[in-house]
Amino acid sequence: MRWSKLYAPTLREAPAGADAASHRLLVRAGFIRQLAGGHYTLLPLAMRVRDNVIRIIREEMQRIGGQEFLLPAMHPAEVWKKSGRYDSVDVMFKLKDRKGNDQVLGLTHEEIFASVGTELRSYRELPQIWYQFQTKFRDEARPKSGLLRVREFTMKDAYSFDLDEAGLDASFEAHREAYVRIFERLGVPAIAVDASSGAMGGSASTEFMCPSEAGEDFVVRCPACGYAANVEKATSRLEPVTDPDTTELARFDTPGVRTIEDLVRDYDVAADRQVKTLVYVIDEQVTLVLLRGDFDLVEQKLADATGAAEIRPAHDEEIVAALGAQPGSLGAVGVTDLPVIADVALRGRRGMVTGANEDGFHVRGVDFGRDIDPGQWLDLREVTAGEACADCGGALEVVKCIEIGHIFKLGRTYSEAFGLTVLDADGRAAVPIMGSYGIGVERAIAAIVETHHDDAGIAWPATVAPFQADITVLGKDPETLAVAERIYRELTEAGVSVLLDDRPERPGSKFKDAELCGFPYRITISNRGLENGTAEVTARADGAVQHIGLDQVSTEVTAKLN
Amino acid sequence: MRWSKLYAPTLREAPAGADAASHRLLVRAGFIRQLAGGHYTLLPLAMRVRDNVIRIIREEMQRIGGQEFLLPAMHPAEVWKKSGRYDSVDVMFKLKDRKGNDQVLGLTHEEIFASVGTELRSYRELPQIWYQFQTKFRDEARPKSGLLRVREFTMKDAYSFDLDEAGLDASFEAHREAYVRIFERLGVPAIAVDASSGAMGGSASTEFMCPSEAGEDFVVRCPACGYAANVEKATSRLEPVTDPDTTELARFDTPGVRTIEDLVRDYDVAADRQVKTLVYVIDEQVTLVLLRGDFDLVEQKLADATGAAEIRPAHDEEIVAALGAQPGSLGAVGVTDLPVIADVALRGRRGMVTGANEDGFHVRGVDFGRDIDPGQWLDLREVTAGEACADCGGALEVVKCIEIGHIFKLGRTYSEAFGLTVLDADGRAAVPIMGSYGIGVERAIAAIVETHHDDAGIAWPATVAPFQADITVLGKDPETLAVAERIYRELTEAGVSVLLDDRPERPGSKFKDAELCGFPYRITISNRGLENGTAEVTARADGAVQHIGLDQVSTEVTAKLN
Repeated sequence: MRWSKLYAPTLREAPAGADAASHRLLVRAGFIRQLAGGHYTLLPLAMRVRDNVIRIIREEMQRIGGQEFLLPAMHPAEVWKKSGRYDSVDVMFKLKDRKGNDQVLGLTHEEIFASVGTELRSYRELPQIWYQFQTKFRDEARPKSGLLRVREFTMKDAYSFDLDEAGLDASFEAHREAYVRIFERLGVPAIAVDASSGAMGGSASTEFMCPSEAGEDFVVRCPACGYAANVEKATSRLEPVTDPDTTELARFDTPGVRTIEDLVRDYDVAADRQVKTLVYVIDEQVTLVLLRGDFDLVEQKLADATGAAEIRPAHDEEIVAALGAQPGSLGAVGVTDLPVIADVALRGRRGMVTGANEDGFHVRGVDFGRDIDPGQWLDLREVTAGEACADCGGALEVVKCIEIGHIFKLGRTYSEAFGLTVLDADGRAAVPIMGSYGIGVERAIAAIVETHHDDAGIAWPATVAPFQADITVLGKDPETLAVAERIYRELTEAGVSVLLDDRPERPGSKFKDAELCGFPYRITISNRGLENGTAEVTARADGAVQHIGLDQVSTEVTAKLN
Repeated sequence: MRWSKLYAPTLREAPAGADAASHRLLVRAGFIRQLAGGHYTLLPLAMRVRDNVIRIIREEMQRIGGQEFLLPAMHPAEVWKKSGRYDSVDVMFKLKDRKGNDQVLGLTHEEIFASVGTELRSYRELPQIWYQFQTKFRDEARPKSGLLRVREFTMKDAYSFDLDEAGLDASFEAHREAYVRIFERLGVPAIAVDASSGAMGGSASTEFMCPSEAGEDFVVRCPACGYAANVEKATSRLEPVTDPDTTELARFDTPGVRTIEDLVRDYDVAADRQVKTLVYVIDEQVTLVLLRGDFDLVEQKLADATGAAEIRPAHDEEIVAALGAQPGSLGAVGVTDLPVIADVALRGRRGMVTGANEDGFHVRGVDFGRDIDPGQWLDLREVTAGEACADCGGALEVVKCIEIGHIFKLGRTYSEAFGLTVLDADGRAAVPIMGSYGIGVERAIAAIVETHHDDAGIAWPATVAPFQADITVLGKDPETLAVAERIYRELTEAGVSVLLDDRPERPGSKFKDAELCGFPYRITISNRGLENGTAEVTARADGAVQHIGLDQVSTEVTAKLN
């Protein structure tokens, strides 16, 4: 293609408030434009990248036996009521049609694929792996960072149907391997981590995480043994703490103390000797949640472990009504009318300090077992960098990441809700077990840019680049253009995607645009080069420059790309 | 691909109420399933056809210089308010996001492409042809006929931007030719017809119409000279009528007369001597619309000619309030306080009969000019079969059709609404002129089936077939399967898409499925054939059977397909 015919409006300035590099660069390089918060237009260069990404994903899905479908984007509300998610999913776009019937815009397709699966009849048809590329709509509270968090995007979502758990394990593993290959081919570093299944339900899930400052997730990983988990799920080895001997409970004045830090500073009580008392409303039940003073709660752990449909911090009025004190002086000692859940780090602890449920008072000498006896012990705390790996004791890292893929063992929740049954080998009815597997296409593009750019612009991996080579023609000499066109034809015939920069721009401006847009190789054809019989070939990734004979350029560039 | 791995649930029975052949067959052959009225799941076989259709359309769009985009499917209402279509388009799905902001699901993208076009700066960048394949949402009152009339579908929509009318004419003509090639390659007979631009506005439009009993449009065409127009736009030559001499107006009793036919039967007044008086509300103005008694009104002509935003038949109460009589006795004689619009067939007519605006009374001797003097003369009547072609006098046909494409000269409505300007060659600001061009992908698939099927099933053209050949293996002999697999490999290597029917089904059932699914060639490998060294090759389109030597099968089938 000729650049003079390409619509790729490059900009000097990034949009105001664009923090993520992918956001800034995709806008500046003329790949995307925002229509409204979370809704982007993909311009021709972005479409070429998207086509490459989709082709790679499709090839890997077909390699594991996936069959491509396309399901409706709009669904009757009844379908979502059947699974129980109509009221529980926060980001669902809902609307009414002309007849007043409730409709939902698909944010994922477990329900719809399960309902398609009702035509499966026999175990002989299993396993099935069905996938699609379809627009998902999610009413995100804060769309941001360009393509990273949007309200509509293309998702490759796949669903597996197996007769039994062993089948699901195999389908899940096939997807895990496919995802590893996909991200490798896309050039995106991806860490596979244990993750919370969240609103999807199911028994296990693995996320694929791309380390990036633009991410919104945190991954805990152990460089020593390779352990990796989302912070929503991660654990670590607890350092032993030596408690003092048992003493009597003693109440003491703590005027003005509101926080853990206040008590450390003013009363010399170490944070790991304090009990942090949080009040949550879990499925409408006011509940005390206890953590060691130096630990933070991971709400998702609380949600996962309790299986609650709704979970939220209690309001101050609810807290005062339940405990008679304000946050800052709360505690579980003597509380018998509310459920108490405690983090396992508090198990067996003695001589602890906690609020007295009276503003300005705390108690010391608190022993778990004697003074507080939680109804549930759960792993609720957030792992932080430097803690010891539970598996090998190595020092854990916490890495900011973009979630680029998520695969779930769903179990039979959706098959049962939609009445899926097949006959097994003995002629008995069996409920197939499902998995679900997703990659956001445009987020993957953003992740590629996050991990492949420098100050001058994007540096696309050759596998997904909108054009693999850019031929920059300098000057208006017809001979220069003729040589450029010959090399263009040779490369095109060799299967390389090439852009011929025939624009009447200054050389500096052409070079800048090519670097900004990120084509892997720039081939510069100039009068001076022609005199030496060479073209200048510049690799975008490392800036390496070679002068290559005009007759060898196309074969050498083709070789570099393969 | 092996049929044993393909999810293609064929059915003996068509869904209840499926009138259109494409609806019946696409469901029975396991291509589509309905999720809800107007929302269909495309199963793997349909996806293969859709990929072929999209590939063909994309190739032809690129051939005329089109660049592929992808625009958001959800738009802020403000964008549609800017063009004035937020309130005027009936089939728009509207919703609110979590912040309470009004959103629209895109039913077409003139507004959004125009807003993207605001970055165009210079006439040197023109022309631009931008297209996308994107889901459109339309809240149709009566979704029906499978994929023919749905609430969500994939549309290839393209938009052109030119500096002036001559440029638009060239872009329009390029699209017209591209569409002719597309429908030819899809195997769909397409008549290009003059059409109403309807809600799109603009100066001219051409529809591509596929003759089919499943259609909902009517095309008037002249076999003699090739004239063709949508009935919403078509005209014909009026046969001359001889009127009697002028007489005085005379009122007469017509008790019980309610219709044109009543007056013909009971009072011997020929229909072509009656004035049909309709009452419409045109942009809130009650208006009389007059036609010859034997002619029917085309509402779209009335809408187009008046340029009204809203047009509807008046309610009975409105009619009585305006004219003092019920429908059946209405007339325009003496009406001075309401606008009167008349069809041109009434111009100069004398001695006509019309209602007296008093229930049970009519008047005769009505002369246009003297007794009724319409404010506007318009072409409003529906052309019917057998009328004379306005161009050549030949007898017109009226053909039921499916609309499979529509291209519009939009003019500057959208460019002006969105403030598009470029600098022209003289450095002056100029407003680009736009065109818009659409093909519904799934409707095109349905049109292919409507025009390529028989009682046994679908007969896909090879250009779009989900598989071009189906190898039916009879029996379980390993040698038979080995030969089948060799031919499968040979064909695959030759670029033919092949399905290998390795299912443990009876031969009759395999043949039936292959015919139902409509693969262009069925290659049957059986023990008996192996003894003779031949395979049986059956053409789906005409049922022709050939026995071809096993070593020639793949080359001969490949040759047939090219």
